Amino acid sequence: MILRDPVHGLVSFESEEEAVLPRLMDTAEVQRLRRVKQLGVACSAFPGGEHTRFSHAIGAAYVMKKLLVRLRAIHEQLPFWQRVTSQSARDALAAAFLHDVGHGPYSHLFEDSLPGAPHHEVWTERVLLDPSTEVHQALASHDPKMPMRVAALVRGEHELPYLAKAVSGMFDVDRCDYLLRDAHFTGVGYGKFDLDWLLRSLRFGPAESLAIDGAKGLPAIEAFLLARLFMFQQVYLHKATRAAEWMVKLALRRANNLLADGTRLPQTPRAMQLAAFGAEIPLADYLVLDDATLEVAMRAWEEGPDPILAELCKRARVRSLYKTLELFGEQATPDGRERAFEIAREIAAARGFDPAWSVGLDVAGDTPVNTKKEELLVVFQKGPVRPLADVSFLLGRLANERLERVRILMRPELRDEVIQALA
Amino acid sequence: MILRDPVHGLVSFESEEEAVLPRLMDTAEVQRLRRVKQLGVACSAFPGGEHTRFSHAIGAAYVMKKLLVRLRAIHEQLPFWQRVTSQSARDALAAAFLHDVGHGPYSHLFEDSLPGAPHHEVWTERVLLDPSTEVHQALASHDPKMPMRVAALVRGEHELPYLAKAVSGMFDVDRCDYLLRDAHFTGVGYGKFDLDWLLRSLRFGPAESLAIDGAKGLPAIEAFLLARLFMFQQVYLHKATRAAEWMVKLALRRANNLLADGTRLPQTPRAMQLAAFGAEIPLADYLVLDDATLEVAMRAWEEGPDPILAELCKRARVRSLYKTLELFGEQATPDGRERAFEIAREIAAARGFDPAWSVGLDVAGDTPVNTKKEELLVVFQKGPVRPLADVSFLLGRLANERLERVRILMRPELRDEVIQALA
Amino acid sequence: MILRDPVHGLVSFESEEEAVLPRLMDTAEVQRLRRVKQLGVACSAFPGGEHTRFSHAIGAAYVMKKLLVRLRAIHEQLPFWQRVTSQSARDALAAAFLHDVGHGPYSHLFEDSLPGAPHHEVWTERVLLDPSTEVHQALASHDPKMPMRVAALVRGEHELPYLAKAVSGMFDVDRCDYLLRDAHFTGVGYGKFDLDWLLRSLRFGPAESLAIDGAKGLPAIEAFLLARLFMFQQVYLHKATRAAEWMVKLALRRANNLLADGTRLPQTPRAMQLAAFGAEIPLADYLVLDDATLEVAMRAWEEGPDPILAELCKRARVRSLYKTLELFGEQATPDGRERAFEIAREIAAARGFDPAWSVGLDVAGDTPVNTKKEELLVVFQKGPVRPLADVSFLLGRLANERLERVRILMRPELRDEVIQALA
Amino acid sequence: MILRDPVHGLVSFESEEEAVLPRLMDTAEVQRLRRVKQLGVACSAFPGGEHTRFSHAIGAAYVMKKLLVRLRAIHEQLPFWQRVTSQSARDALAAAFLHDVGHGPYSHLFEDSLPGAPHHEVWTERVLLDPSTEVHQALASHDPKMPMRVAALVRGEHELPYLAKAVSGMFDVDRCDYLLRDAHFTGVGYGKFDLDWLLRSLRFGPAESLAIDGAKGLPAIEAFLLARLFMFQQVYLHKATRAAEWMVKLALRRANNLLADGTRLPQTPRAMQLAAFGAEIPLADYLVLDDATLEVAMRAWEEGPDPILAELCKRARVRSLYKTLELFGEQATPDGRERAFEIAREIAAARGFDPAWSVGLDVAGDTPVNTKKEELLVVFQKGPVRPLADVSFLLGRLANERLERVRILMRPELRDEVIQALA
Repeated sequence: MILRDPVHGLVSFESEEEAVLPRLMDTAEVQRLRRVKQLGVACSAFPGGEHTRFSHAIGAAYVMKKLLVRLRAIHEQLPFWQRVTSQSARDALAAAFLHDVGHGPYSHLFEDSLPGAPHHEVWTERVLLDPSTEVHQALASHDPKMPMRVAALVRGEHELPYLAKAVSGMFDVDRCDYLLRDAHFTGVGYGKFDLDWLLRSLRFGPAESLAIDGAKGLPAIEAFLLARLFMFQQVYLHKATRAAEWMVKLALRRANNLLADGTRLPQTPRAMQLAAFGAEIPLADYLVLDDATLEVAMRAWEEGPDPILAELCKRARVRSLYKTLELFGEQATPDGRERAFEIAREIAAARGFDPAWSVGLDVAGDTPVNTKKEELLVVFQKGPVRPLADVSFLLGRLANERLERVRILMRPELRDEVIQALA
Repeated sequence: MILRDPVHGLVSFESEEEAVLPRLMDTAEVQRLRRVKQLGVACSAFPGGEHTRFSHAIGAAYVMKKLLVRLRAIHEQLPFWQRVTSQSARDALAAAFLHDVGHGPYSHLFEDSLPGAPHHEVWTERVLLDPSTEVHQALASHDPKMPMRVAALVRGEHELPYLAKAVSGMFDVDRCDYLLRDAHFTGVGYGKFDLDWLLRSLRFGPAESLAIDGAKGLPAIEAFLLARLFMFQQVYLHKATRAAEWMVKLALRRANNLLADGTRLPQTPRAMQLAAFGAEIPLADYLVLDDATLEVAMRAWEEGPDPILAELCKRARVRSLYKTLELFGEQATPDGRERAFEIAREIAAARGFDPAWSVGLDVAGDTPVNTKKEELLVVFQKGPVRPLADVSFLLGRLANERLERVRILMRPELRDEVIQALA
Repeated sequence: MILRDPVHGLVSFESEEEAVLPRLMDTAEVQRLRRVKQLGVACSAFPGGEHTRFSHAIGAAYVMKKLLVRLRAIHEQLPFWQRVTSQSARDALAAAFLHDVGHGPYSHLFEDSLPGAPHHEVWTERVLLDPSTEVHQALASHDPKMPMRVAALVRGEHELPYLAKAVSGMFDVDRCDYLLRDAHFTGVGYGKFDLDWLLRSLRFGPAESLAIDGAKGLPAIEAFLLARLFMFQQVYLHKATRAAEWMVKLALRRANNLLADGTRLPQTPRAMQLAAFGAEIPLADYLVLDDATLEVAMRAWEEGPDPILAELCKRARVRSLYKTLELFGEQATPDGRERAFEIAREIAAARGFDPAWSVGLDVAGDTPVNTKKEELLVVFQKGPVRPLADVSFLLGRLANERLERVRILMRPELRDEVIQALA
Repeated sequence: MILRDPVHGLVSFESEEEAVLPRLMDTAEVQRLRRVKQLGVACSAFPGGEHTRFSHAIGAAYVMKKLLVRLRAIHEQLPFWQRVTSQSARDALAAAFLHDVGHGPYSHLFEDSLPGAPHHEVWTERVLLDPSTEVHQALASHDPKMPMRVAALVRGEHELPYLAKAVSGMFDVDRCDYLLRDAHFTGVGYGKFDLDWLLRSLRFGPAESLAIDGAKGLPAIEAFLLARLFMFQQVYLHKATRAAEWMVKLALRRANNLLADGTRLPQTPRAMQLAAFGAEIPLADYLVLDDATLEVAMRAWEEGPDPILAELCKRARVRSLYKTLELFGEQATPDGRERAFEIAREIAAARGFDPAWSVGLDVAGDTPVNTKKEELLVVFQKGPVRPLADVSFLLGRLANERLERVRILMRPELRDEVIQALA
């Protein structure tokens, strides 16, 4: 199978080792990802960002393919039992392709909104292990133990630690693809980095971990980590992205509360009804969910019995977003933000709105170079291995620094008063 | 308003003349375009091609903005009553932005499938002229006559003929944007052309028509027309695109027949029910339609009473496409293709399938340089105006040549037998 | 060795088979190519086009490396004695890298201007075969017969015909690189094509020749051939390119005549002096020549004894180009152009200028799809092999059509009068 | 005049205000820049980096043109006497175009090597003010005072302080162009930033200085400053760049010493001879200098009387570079590096080489965000103006941090011994 990908160009999976991928691509569970947008509602702010988890899955598998080429070019320095085998390569490709197969509609939003509902990692594992899925059958037809092995790999477990980290780590194939893909589709130029050069700069360091080549690789890894920082600043933490996400979450939570109280909401997917009662959701019901299911449900709720839910759904549909006020300095500290939030809630109440559905406090952040979580090492032709943050002028200055955005979210009617009170 | 667009970079609409665009963008009718994919089901073949008519509308308006800059740089050679005014500029921007606002789900598919249903041009005009729409109100709030003027412009009527052709002509702003956009998102490299250079090479020719500057502009217009040809060959007429489109059309037509016969189909949008009975569709019902509505309906029909419809819907959802066989030479002639189609139908019948829902004949084509429809002229500093096809080595050889693809479409089970009979 | 290339990205030559390339790169003869511009004086018209034959040599070798990967992916269908060996791969890489090593200053201009001087192909062969060159020594140190084999390959002779054509044929590695490179550096967007896809679409056809895969490869080869056409139209045959080339040729020819007549010209390279007397040029003298040598000589000739030569050199230095008038229709026919040229010569003479150094007739052309020279074949999964021009809508219409540009070149003072007489 | 530029696309100078640029482009002094490479000998390490100061001059003028559009879009908030006039626009365009017209061969190398020789800024001023130059005449023909005004602007003096800084400041048009240009031609992907967005994010801050728009502009200015940092790390301070530069400087200094001692060196340009004697260099002699003059001179010195000079010139020609050893930590401190250098000198002397021409200490650095030199301010819709380093997560962490590279340079023969002694 060969296909065109706007991010990677010519993508081909034609070898015997890759044969599992075309089979997986035709399964119903993977095809469902065509109906789940990668960036969820972030396309509110970035009209081009309408790509789906399906093309990301292909991209992640393709990055894994390229990574395997690099690993095999350098694994001769490892003892033979530490090298990439055909089986581990096949597992790694499948894991890269399937790592997101359990994602619900609007990506992370769904799972964040339904209290007690399992997270997408759990659903991914069910899709892999449940014998009723086409994905399971496709894997098991290669090797009955393959579903188990791929599930372990997706969880980050593998006897080759470098392979586990390539599926889930600081620069795993998931990140490599989504940064480039999200940048390409949103048009944000700053998320680019040189993937080929980055892969080429990988070497084995101590304890079979992957390390960076000090002679050639620094700019590539610097650009990769900066690309991630830029995408957080520009896209993932963009005020319109956060406001849209918050409104959809509010709507889903409101619907959940209403359903739990026995209210009937039209067009509600069975999975949501079960979740509202704390009942377990059968896999088949979960897999019915996608962006379209949710959009149609929310459209129907506009005509439903609850005016708050109706308004939230209408606003989400026509992108009439809640407003944001970013807090800085003292106001952004844990205490300060709580005080600010309380003031905003009081203003809402005084204006006759229920604060719970009219005002929010949104704290979002990231530590772009988190050496406590995972320390990248740099190897040199001569001399000792050194931590990346010691060698890189740029990353040394960013190490363990936390980027945080604190914002008050509110109905547009409250904006002027809240700004006057807080700014 | 400024925003990032992956195709045009920085897109801004900030002047007084452009103020109508941010207002239009917030209307419910325009926001609906976020839920209508530009390429419909072509993303079967091109996983990246998931962009919507919403981003295309922005892009088309932006190309119009750039075109207006060029027109104003050269319109001094025209008598003053032939020049671009503020009013005509505003109308042109709105027309470019709204030219597709009436498109149904899956772009052209919907209107092609329901016999008797109005085409998207009709719906666009209704959206513009119906006082109940937010689009109409936004336009009328600028000037009560603006809806009428914009509707005329979308139909290609304007007292400035060059402006009318810029909305609907051989190289209108619609084409300029969708070629670049479809190429960017599908990853097909061949659809690129140099928009800035193309605009810069425009001059006024005889009778206030736009012409190409012979000294600098030939490669730009050649590349533009070739880009279109390449996109047809590669994307719009791609066999997987055509097969997916055909299957969705079959499903819609089947549903329409069933509804007309009185069968009840679950989750059917009211607009489809009315269409099946030949009743007029109220605008509000039409505007409920989008890709999500249709996806959810088709999903429900999988559980509905008709097995043929159920199968078509299931296949469309999991992209289990019908197969294609391209016909060449004698077999591709009008007579030959009918004979081939008849043979395929007989094979289907012999295998127990209803030919009407199992086999199709697909003829699709384009004339990339159609000088009979619209002749582009080339102007030189000295010497006479000359037709483009006379001046361009490349286009002269393509003029009025028709590209055609003729294919038999069929259920996968029939493929081997049909190929044996026809190949 | 790994390095950054703006055209191909990460270029690496690290395998044992590629080890000859870093050695060759350090030779004095290859380093000389850093001082020979790829496009000669075409940078008059395209300020960015200042890249040298050195970076093109690297690029051509890199394309060969990629081609070898493709050949090895498909050569299993050939009998084993027709497959790529390590030796033939090494030879092919060296031949791709060295195919232009004999180019004189300003690329083709030098050899075209000195009557009787050997062409660059001859010099390339001498560099390869002369035991005194570092290139010869680097090759011979791998294998004493390697210089001979590489020289044969550069001439297009090899026991594997597909390898010979890859060095010198319709889509050889030379073209693949220079089209992309010239487009990148001049900024002409139209010379791009998808190299990876093109290579991927190669298959073996009849008689071990390379053919195009009919299922996937047509757009790639169409874009490649069109890229070439566009580069001819836009860059290689650009009027300023041709005028600048003609003036430098005039200057060199004038200098040659003067030297042959015994005039002493300051700073003249020994190779030119010898050439003027019809003496053989020793290789060492030839290899002193580069763009700088010629620029310094021409600068000195501005102060030399001959006013015509001085003026031509001054004009070339400050880019005060001769003017051009393109001829069309009847005037462009062989007879018509001679008449037009004669008229221009008479005007020059009447104005007191020596026509030989004031007026020129420039005829330049290309046949973008020359099936008589080399016919590309297309292979399909089923059915017969077919000629490319039969299968491709686009190329079928261009096959054996000749693009020609006919121009009168003249001193600026003559322009108005010549235009009046001819236009 | 319109032309293609690989960095900016379509570059046009067609308005009355821009009419000075085509005239300047045809002057001999500007045409000389075609023969002066922008990156000097850095193309040793980056084969694509062969672009000249000529295309950079065009690019800088084009960035100025775009900046003027932005300034005029926002200057209405200034009192009218602080706004851009036609005269100041014309001056600014000319200053951007001519700011480098005095550069000598190999860019900065020439002036750094000849003790006492004036720097390029002085030569630029002379070219502007000397009535004999074509540049002066072109400017004066517009307005006799224009040469003086442009010279002042190039020095960074203007009654509009924001215009002065746009010619010479933290993000002047020079930097904007050379970062993009050097990145494009070397192929180093990390030097890219979004010029349009950066310009669009400019606003007027306090005291008519240009400031950044806090709502939209942060990523653009962050990316710009990082692009500069990346280009320093990757290209300008690359070890091969520095080694090549150092060798050419050594050769020029050696030649200068020899000339000062009365040695005759063949082909030496008159300007160098005069410089060696401390005599003043007439402008005409200086303007003869370009890369070609120097290359031919160095080629001749290979045959000259001094073996040290001959070897340096030969090495430079065939890129047989001296080796480098980077010093880190304690060894990189001012004391440490002197000790290391002394050790290297002793090793050279012990091996019989003159340390002065065999070993070097190279310290190069940059402060990417130097708020002490020039503090950029950020303006918000509401609230006070704030320093960029306070607002930007990234730049706050880089502010006033100095990037430094300390290296020992040495003849290849000394490398192993020096590494053993120091590593």
